[in-house]
Amino acid sequence: MFEKVLIANRDEIAVRVIQACSELGVEAVAVYSDADEDAKHVRLADEAYHIGNSKAKESYLDQDALLEAARAADADAIHPGYGFLAESESFAATVEASEFEWIGPPSDVMADFGEKTKARKIMEAADVPIVPGTTEPVTSPDEVEAFGEEHGYPIAIKADGGGGGRGLKIAYGPDEIESKLQEAIREGDAYFDNPSVYLERFLEDPRHIEVQIIADEHGNVRHLGERDCSIQRRQQKLVEESPSPVLDEETRAELCDAACRGAASADYVNAGTVEFLYEGGEFYFIEVNARIQVEHTVTEQLTGIDLVKWQLRVAAGEELTFSQDDIEPRGAAIEFRINAEDPDNDFIPLPGTLSTYRPARGIGVRVDDGVDEGDSIAPFYDSMFAKLVVTGEDRAEAIARGKRALEETTIDGVPTTIPFHKLLLEDEGFVANEHTTTYVENDLLER
Amino acid sequence: MFEKVLIANRDEIAVRVIQACSELGVEAVAVYSDADEDAKHVRLADEAYHIGNSKAKESYLDQDALLEAARAADADAIHPGYGFLAESESFAATVEASEFEWIGPPSDVMADFGEKTKARKIMEAADVPIVPGTTEPVTSPDEVEAFGEEHGYPIAIKADGGGGGRGLKIAYGPDEIESKLQEAIREGDAYFDNPSVYLERFLEDPRHIEVQIIADEHGNVRHLGERDCSIQRRQQKLVEESPSPVLDEETRAELCDAACRGAASADYVNAGTVEFLYEGGEFYFIEVNARIQVEHTVTEQLTGIDLVKWQLRVAAGEELTFSQDDIEPRGAAIEFRINAEDPDNDFIPLPGTLSTYRPARGIGVRVDDGVDEGDSIAPFYDSMFAKLVVTGEDRAEAIARGKRALEETTIDGVPTTIPFHKLLLEDEGFVANEHTTTYVENDLLER
Repeated sequence: MFEKVLIANRDEIAVRVIQACSELGVEAVAVYSDADEDAKHVRLADEAYHIGNSKAKESYLDQDALLEAARAADADAIHPGYGFLAESESFAATVEASEFEWIGPPSDVMADFGEKTKARKIMEAADVPIVPGTTEPVTSPDEVEAFGEEHGYPIAIKADGGGGGRGLKIAYGPDEIESKLQEAIREGDAYFDNPSVYLERFLEDPRHIEVQIIADEHGNVRHLGERDCSIQRRQQKLVEESPSPVLDEETRAELCDAACRGAASADYVNAGTVEFLYEGGEFYFIEVNARIQVEHTVTEQLTGIDLVKWQLRVAAGEELTFSQDDIEPRGAAIEFRINAEDPDNDFIPLPGTLSTYRPARGIGVRVDDGVDEGDSIAPFYDSMFAKLVVTGEDRAEAIARGKRALEETTIDGVPTTIPFHKLLLEDEGFVANEHTTTYVENDLLER
Repeated sequence: MFEKVLIANRDEIAVRVIQACSELGVEAVAVYSDADEDAKHVRLADEAYHIGNSKAKESYLDQDALLEAARAADADAIHPGYGFLAESESFAATVEASEFEWIGPPSDVMADFGEKTKARKIMEAADVPIVPGTTEPVTSPDEVEAFGEEHGYPIAIKADGGGGGRGLKIAYGPDEIESKLQEAIREGDAYFDNPSVYLERFLEDPRHIEVQIIADEHGNVRHLGERDCSIQRRQQKLVEESPSPVLDEETRAELCDAACRGAASADYVNAGTVEFLYEGGEFYFIEVNARIQVEHTVTEQLTGIDLVKWQLRVAAGEELTFSQDDIEPRGAAIEFRINAEDPDNDFIPLPGTLSTYRPARGIGVRVDDGVDEGDSIAPFYDSMFAKLVVTGEDRAEAIARGKRALEETTIDGVPTTIPFHKLLLEDEGFVANEHTTTYVENDLLER
C-alpha cells in the first residue's frame, strides 16, 4: 500500500479520500486554492499545500502546480476525485509518466472511453446494446439529416468529449439541424477542447441507470449492482438510488453483465461507472465515467464495500478479494445532493456562510460533506457541499427515513436543495416510481 | 399501527424511538423533567408533556405522571426505552391494565425474567446451559459455605432483582461469606426492593456475549446474532461489538439457538437480550434483559433490521416478516459509548454544556444521541449522551474506522470517554482479541 497520497481535489470528495487514507493508515496530502485555505479537507489532511488562486484553472486544474505539490510532499500516488482533472487523460498520462501512481483507470482506457464514438464502438464489439447512432464523428448537416430519415427525430447531437449534459443538443426536426450542430461543436470545443460530435437517437423519456464496476490489474472485473439516477434537472443528477425500482431481476443481471463485459473488453482497471438509458424495457449504453462518482455512496451502503479504499488498493496492485457471488447488495439506499442553490429561484447557486450546519444522524443515515458549521461555500466551484444518504430495508423505508433525516437536517446561511428533496419524497409520481429523467423539469417543478 | 406513542424516557433512546415513530408515520409524544425542558427529545417530538422535577423519582420514574401525560396526549401506546421503568413489571402491568398498549414484553414474561432464580429455572428447563448455582434464594451463610465446598471459590452472591452489576458481591473465601451476603441483601433491598439473593460460581475471566432476539404474538421467535460486550468497567459496558470475535460458527449457532429456545419456552414477545458468559469454550446463561438495550444499534448495523420499529409493530400485533434464514448479519460493527465522564479521573461524571459538538460523519459511521451543540448534560441522569457506531467489512476495518471517526469527533465543554476509546483501539490486547470482562480494570487501565 502507498505511504502517502496526494488528493488533487477539494470539498466532500477530498474529505472522502482522506477518510479512506486514514483508515488504511496512509498519509493524506491536501491541496488548496486561496478560497479553500481553511476548508475542511485542509483541516483533516495530514499535510496541505497551497496550489494557486481561487479560479479552478489556476489551482485545481493546474497540472504543474499539483505535481509540484506531490513532489514537495513526497507523495507516492495521486487521487483525482471526480470533476476537475479526474477525467483528463492528459493528466493521467502525465502522472503515469512521473514518479507517482495514478489512482484511477489507465490513461489509455480513459482515452478509449473519453471519446464517446470510440466508447460506443468498444461496447458494440462487446455485444453491449448501444443507443442507435453513429460510431464515427459527423461534421455536416447532411449527415444529420440522413440519420434523421433513417431513425426519426428527435436526434441527439453530442460532443465527442462531452459528459454531464454539456455539449448535448437536441434537434427535434430537420429545421433545427444546422443550428444545433453548430452549438454542439462550439460547446465541445469550448468545454472539452474537442469539436468532434456524433449522433444518437434521442430517447425522450428514459430512466438513467448505471452500473458500478471495479476491476484490478489481474483481470478481475466485478459489478456492485446498479444505481438509478433518473431524478435530474438540466442533465444534473439531484437524487440517486439503488436498486433501480424499474428493473426486474433478469434485466438487472443482463445489465450488470453487459457492463462487466464491456469494461473487461477494454482492459478496464480501477473503479468506474457504465451508464445506460432504459426505455421500453430495453437498456442502451451511453457512456463510461472512468472515475469515482458522486453517487458511489449509494452502492457502498448496499454492498458494505468501501469503493474508495478499493481504488487505492487496486492502484497499488492488489487483487480484488471478493468474487462476484460475494457481492450481495442488501436493502435500498437513496442519496440526496445538498447544494447551496435556491430551488425556489431556478436553482441559482447562492454561496454564503453556514451559520448553522446540523446534519441528520441516527439509524440508516450517512452524511458525506466538505464542511463544518461556520464554513463558507465558495462561489468558484460546484455548489454541492454535502450528500445525505439514507438506507433502509426496502425503498419504502428509505423514503420514510429520507423524510425524517431531511426534517432533522438544519442548515442556515445558504439556501439548499433540501426543500426540493422534501417535495420529491412527498410526490406520488416519485413514490410510485413513475418518473423518468424528464420528470423533474416537465412535471414536478411545473405544478 | 398506533397513531400516537408516548415515550416514557429521555436522551438518546427517546430520540431513537421518536425517529422510529416518525419513519412509521406515528406521532411521538415526549415527556420531560424540569432539567429536560429544552432537550433534543422534546424538540424532536410532535408533542411534549412536563411530568415533574429533575429527580428521576419525581419524573421519569413517576408512573402516575407518565400515565397522566399519556391520557392528556391521547396516546395509544407507551414505549419505555431502557433504564427508568423499562424493566418494571409493575409499570408494564399497570399499562397493560390501562387503555394503552405496552411496547415491550408482557408483564408476566418480565416477571419471569426479572427474578433471576426464576429465569435460571426457565432456562435450565429449556436445556440452556446456566452458570452452576442455586435456582432457589439463599438466606444463611451456611448455605453459601456449603455451595463453596461443592463448587469452589469465588462465589457470586447476586440480588435476585439485580442487574447491571448492582447487587452483585463476590466471596473469594469462606471468611468473606458473611459480609458479602449481607451487602448483596442490602443492595438488592435498596435498589430493587427485593432482598432475596442467590449463588453462582463466579467466572473470573469470561467474555460477556449476548443474543438479540425478537418475537411476535404469533409464536415466531428470531435471533439477530450476538454481541460481545466484554469491554466493561465496574460491570458497566463501554464498548460493544458484533460478531463476537471469539466464537466459531458452530458455537455461535448453538448460542443463538439456545437463546431462542429459552425465550420461546417463556412465550417471549417483543425485543429482548439473552445474556451469557463465555469461558473455556462454554457459554452459560446469566440473565434476560426484557427491553431494548443501549447496544441494539450494533445488531441493526449488521442485519439492516430496525429493531425499534419492530418493537412497535410487534406491540401492535403484527407478525414478523422475516424468517431466521432471512437474517444474515454482514460485516462487523463496534459501538463506543460517549459519556460525560473523565477517564483520567476514575471516570467521574462531569456534567456541563456542550460548547462544541461535532459528531463524526462519512462511510460506516452512525451516531445516535440525545443532544445538539449548545445543549447541557444534566447531572441527574446517566452520563451517556451519544453512541458512535462504526461498521466495516470486518473487525479490522471497523477498528480502523473507529479510530478515524473518534479522531473526527469534536466535543468541548465536558470531558468524555473518547480518550479511553482511542486508547482501547490502539491496544494490542483488544486488537488481538485477548480481552475478557476484567481486562479494562485489571490490565488496560493499570498500565
